Amino acid sequence: MIKAQTLKGFRDFLPSAAIARQVVMGKIKNVFERYGFDPLETPALEYAETLLGKYGGEADKLLYLFRDNGKRNVGLRYDQTVPLSRVVAQYPELPKPFKRYQIQPVWRAENTQKGRFREFLQCDIDTVGSDSPLSDAEIIDCSLNAFKQLGFSAITMDVNDRTIFDELNLTKKEMTIIDKLDKIGADAVIQELEAGGRKNAKNLFASLKKAKPTERIWKIFEALKKLGYKENADFRFNPFLARGLDYYTSTIFELKTEAYPAGSLAGGGRYDKLIGQFSGQDLPAVGISFGFDRIMEAMEEFKLLSTQKTATQLLVTIFSPEQLGASLALTTELRREGLNAEVYGDTGVKLDKQLKYADKKGIPYVIIQGPDEVNRNVVKLKNMQTNKQEELTVDQVIAKLTKDA
Amino acid sequence: MIKAQTLKGFRDFLPSAAIARQVVMGKIKNVFERYGFDPLETPALEYAETLLGKYGGEADKLLYLFRDNGKRNVGLRYDQTVPLSRVVAQYPELPKPFKRYQIQPVWRAENTQKGRFREFLQCDIDTVGSDSPLSDAEIIDCSLNAFKQLGFSAITMDVNDRTIFDELNLTKKEMTIIDKLDKIGADAVIQELEAGGRKNAKNLFASLKKAKPTERIWKIFEALKKLGYKENADFRFNPFLARGLDYYTSTIFELKTEAYPAGSLAGGGRYDKLIGQFSGQDLPAVGISFGFDRIMEAMEEFKLLSTQKTATQLLVTIFSPEQLGASLALTTELRREGLNAEVYGDTGVKLDKQLKYADKKGIPYVIIQGPDEVNRNVVKLKNMQTNKQEELTVDQVIAKLTKDA
Repeated sequence: MIKAQTLKGFRDFLPSAAIARQVVMGKIKNVFERYGFDPLETPALEYAETLLGKYGGEADKLLYLFRDNGKRNVGLRYDQTVPLSRVVAQYPELPKPFKRYQIQPVWRAENTQKGRFREFLQCDIDTVGSDSPLSDAEIIDCSLNAFKQLGFSAITMDVNDRTIFDELNLTKKEMTIIDKLDKIGADAVIQELEAGGRKNAKNLFASLKKAKPTERIWKIFEALKKLGYKENADFRFNPFLARGLDYYTSTIFELKTEAYPAGSLAGGGRYDKLIGQFSGQDLPAVGISFGFDRIMEAMEEFKLLSTQKTATQLLVTIFSPEQLGASLALTTELRREGLNAEVYGDTGVKLDKQLKYADKKGIPYVIIQGPDEVNRNVVKLKNMQTNKQEELTVDQVIAKLTKDA
Repeated sequence: MIKAQTLKGFRDFLPSAAIARQVVMGKIKNVFERYGFDPLETPALEYAETLLGKYGGEADKLLYLFRDNGKRNVGLRYDQTVPLSRVVAQYPELPKPFKRYQIQPVWRAENTQKGRFREFLQCDIDTVGSDSPLSDAEIIDCSLNAFKQLGFSAITMDVNDRTIFDELNLTKKEMTIIDKLDKIGADAVIQELEAGGRKNAKNLFASLKKAKPTERIWKIFEALKKLGYKENADFRFNPFLARGLDYYTSTIFELKTEAYPAGSLAGGGRYDKLIGQFSGQDLPAVGISFGFDRIMEAMEEFKLLSTQKTATQLLVTIFSPEQLGASLALTTELRREGLNAEVYGDTGVKLDKQLKYADKKGIPYVIIQGPDEVNRNVVKLKNMQTNKQEELTVDQVIAKLTKDA
């Protein structure tokens, strides 16, 4: 016998969880399309060289790399920004600006912990081929709107510009240290910076504190205000925001909500030098990635998730083997009218057992139709929550449940 | 510079292809839910031992297997039936019968050819925990209905029962040879069977030709007739249907359409002994897998696919930098009313260039609003296909495009 088990950091989504995920995914997708982003899908596997050396820090060690049967070095998708950059270089015919969204799983061989998995879903939007601050503002606008549609209140987009760090001659390593400010506090950051060889880290810290928004940030904020967003509520300049990934070149942003202190729910920025690594010619680009699993976690905490256990709206029971034909015909009719109707999957099973099945699966309504009801052209509709039963015509059932949906 | 390339047998889906896929996927998903199947998601990676030895034939060689950073032997999902069986054994609390659908990619290191890829999408429905022929009939009913919803006509489900082969003492290898009948013809099948050691293959062939449906098939057909399907049109008994996979135990079926002779578009059957390999206790199960990529190919051939290039319904141009605020406000209003509205991503760009962008992306309508239009509270709406332009109020635009959608 083989042990039935999932790999550490990997998850099965049973129906109720999968339904909740689909609802959230659908809402995010709708908002992305509202803003003119079109879908893109890329393969799970890429050539290893496409992925290696793009993310910085320890990322290369977290890649799932292997040799395939054809001895190619390949790797599983680590994010969606690098595959997008590869795509843009590979298909120069794509209209620019190219605005795409992508909702696919990514894989990282991380140490697992709460909210951190080895397979997780990312929801990305990116605009390629425009260096206008309007594009940055649009990514922020679309993100804030998506979170609003999901039911979040009190969300803030922190915004910074990496060129501020460049002017202070910060290394990528030092940016990573500064990025930990929220987690470890100012003193620890200053200590780590000095341990890393930075003299007068306190001064550096003070300079950052006094830093002014760059011209790009200023223009982004102007556009956001025109769109009705409020500074220091919906968005704010945060000179200590650094972000972990290597490829950002100027704007960076991160979406947080005070109610979910565990971390940011989305993050991104501008990466004007990444596509050139594949095409030989730089092309400006900006985008954001939503951490879908953290969003689900936060929504669960805030009771924003669907608790639907099944997509099935009603179960048609089979009164007796002789009634099978009537039950099948009724179910077919209900489906044709757009209802998710299930017919019990066996004949000769006691009604009681059929009702228990509906209850366990979470089906809200059950239809009972014996020969008497068939003759009178009615059914009994039982509400599984209230246990109340009413006699209705099929048309009445359809009207009632269509209204419910 | 890194070469921008996809791996052989792997594909990018650019927006127009990704949109068409989403439409088809959505229709399939809707039909699955109509029949009471709920979604399930399983990880891309499984322990290698979960996958090995389940499929028979050459399948183990086609698995993407590797050792992960933790030295575990792992493999990419090869189908969705084995992960489902693992899930059912792992979560005994799932209500039975457990009816789930699953729409995820699978990976097979096959030799690539037309319609055969190394990463492709499967759409599966399965019912676990019922050995009633009604469950088999429901899988067939749901499949026929799904193909009808996609616009296919003249589809037939071939049905057979592996126990017919068992009674004739056919080996799995011999079943694979018989399964090639459509491709290589009767003579070649008989030759191959004899080369494989079967004496009197001609007699065997004749016995199959005379074979009668089993009691299970007979009951399945009774149910299908009750559901309004016609024998030898919508479904038919085909004693030469064998299917490649090892795990089928009785019913097997395959959906074909004469108009797409390249192969079956869906296939499945009953596998009553697979779950026991994970749980130690057999649990009857039946299901089908839709070959999504072949379906897309067939639909393209029959012109059944959406040819929409973008989900964006209209582009709001920016008349001049001074008009940016008005354009942003208008776009936000249109989005709030449910339209997929894009605003041009830069200021100071000539109108002509903005129109060219809309044309290249395939956006059907463009809004032009100069200071004069703003003052008069109207916009110019340009139909990009007809090049006709009309002056409308914003409410009229919303009404017009909402009707279009």
